[in-house]
Amino acid sequence: MIDRSELDCGREAVCRKALREILTSGYGLLKGGGSALDAVELAVKLLEDAEVFNAGRGSVLTAAGTVEMDASIMDGRSRRAGAVAGVRNIRNPVCAARSVMEHSPHVMLIGAGAEDFAGKHGIERAGQDYFITPLRVEQLERSRAAASSARIEHEASPPLPDDGATGTVGAVARDAEGHLAAATSTGGTNNKLPGRVGDTPLIGAGVWADDSVCAVSCTGHGEAFVRSVFGHEVDALMRLAGMALGRACEHALARVQAMGGNGGCIAVDTKGGIALLFDTTGMYRAWIDESGNPHVGIFGYRHKTGHA
Amino acid sequence: MIDRSELDCGREAVCRKALREILTSGYGLLKGGGSALDAVELAVKLLEDAEVFNAGRGSVLTAAGTVEMDASIMDGRSRRAGAVAGVRNIRNPVCAARSVMEHSPHVMLIGAGAEDFAGKHGIERAGQDYFITPLRVEQLERSRAAASSARIEHEASPPLPDDGATGTVGAVARDAEGHLAAATSTGGTNNKLPGRVGDTPLIGAGVWADDSVCAVSCTGHGEAFVRSVFGHEVDALMRLAGMALGRACEHALARVQAMGGNGGCIAVDTKGGIALLFDTTGMYRAWIDESGNPHVGIFGYRHKTGHA
Repeated sequence: MIDRSELDCGREAVCRKALREILTSGYGLLKGGGSALDAVELAVKLLEDAEVFNAGRGSVLTAAGTVEMDASIMDGRSRRAGAVAGVRNIRNPVCAARSVMEHSPHVMLIGAGAEDFAGKHGIERAGQDYFITPLRVEQLERSRAAASSARIEHEASPPLPDDGATGTVGAVARDAEGHLAAATSTGGTNNKLPGRVGDTPLIGAGVWADDSVCAVSCTGHGEAFVRSVFGHEVDALMRLAGMALGRACEHALARVQAMGGNGGCIAVDTKGGIALLFDTTGMYRAWIDESGNPHVGIFGYRHKTGHA
Repeated sequence: MIDRSELDCGREAVCRKALREILTSGYGLLKGGGSALDAVELAVKLLEDAEVFNAGRGSVLTAAGTVEMDASIMDGRSRRAGAVAGVRNIRNPVCAARSVMEHSPHVMLIGAGAEDFAGKHGIERAGQDYFITPLRVEQLERSRAAASSARIEHEASPPLPDDGATGTVGAVARDAEGHLAAATSTGGTNNKLPGRVGDTPLIGAGVWADDSVCAVSCTGHGEAFVRSVFGHEVDALMRLAGMALGRACEHALARVQAMGGNGGCIAVDTKGGIALLFDTTGMYRAWIDESGNPHVGIFGYRHKTGHA
């Protein structure tokens, strides 16, 4: 979820290039017989490494000036899932989420416990310096200045402008065997309270995958997506109300909007149909069409559903 | 979720007495015109204070010998929700969850961030000594011994016996104005990895409330409840598939069982119909019947649905 004002032409070009390369990597893995699970982990890992997105390196900062990241992954084969929240020293939180899924009896680990677990399972670490970029420092300073001027004017603190600084990353995929997977990763929201967790690491909210229904990854106003249980709502609308993927995503997004939230999602169904849906100015997105051709979008049409 | 072997007669009597008193307190609040939200917070607060349950004082211990608690609350009026996870020094985590809901723009805060927030909002603190009871120390020691003997035998670590030490607490209520609410609180599972979070603080998993559908609070094998998005699944089965409350709870529990989990839930619908469902040896439970009479159960029938 982004704001055109944040992007100068140079930055937009960097984003488009990164999206195209990452899409190509993920698709290459799938074409080579790789699993949907491996493809979404790879794509999200590369998105975390690209500092232009709000996940991994380039994550937005908390009110304390630190980076705290959340990530999740879900395997549609068995609805196995893994998630981490509030991690500060894991280079690729999505890889830690997968490790929790595969090497622990648990689904979700948070904070230092998650970091210790990841360390014991060979997940690469990085210091706070690695994650923090000048753009995110500047965004935090702008938020602090806005909050400060609001206080001087004796007003109640207004909602802070998010500087387009949501921009959670995610990936969904269907592989040659028909398995679905989804992964999501984020630094959260600019100037968030330390310890704040949004929808990204919550199974059924910011991520969902079930081979028999759909795979979904979300971005947007995290609290509204949590209270709408977005991913599982899309699943339920398809499974129980017989809706097609695109219509289910629209209905789920309407529930987010009804409580004042906005955002978007990427989703895939059992036949490979896709939905790329958002109600914001823009949403970084990339997909492969029916003919195997890559596409990248940032602004432009706000709703694409179809087969790919 | 409990095991009869854990309960000697004295302990069972203490549990029954506590349940009856807490039920009476919550019902008294509702009869005096109080809200469902206040009633579930009060009931869960008192359950946290009673050291015989696995929440607040009397929480089970992590593998590190510490107490880490999770709690959530949800208001059916607007699907507002609050949750905390991994908190160690908050006497009543459910009160912190409500404070997050009412005094922050967020839904979920974890770890030290949640503790700092609660401190700033006047939520009472307590040291680890307050929470840790001799029973929970003994249960952890038994688990460690079992894991150690398994290692000596060169076997893969078996799933540890839980000593009946799940026993998450929760409450659901419908008030005179027809509003629904739910709250859930837990110390998690005995000998859990530090940082492990189950379904309890996840909105749509261990807790759910929507005035137009139902309110649900869960206990059991947390990971399976997370992967089933239990509370929201019950809601979806009623809202989208037209099921009655009891049948929706049964279907949702079947999804938990299909992935090897078990547990139970308490739930109420818009008309005041209730469901108390579990597939385990026992589940501490208490409810008010149609005539306003209190009931307490621990073992006995495993499935009650009806109107109350």
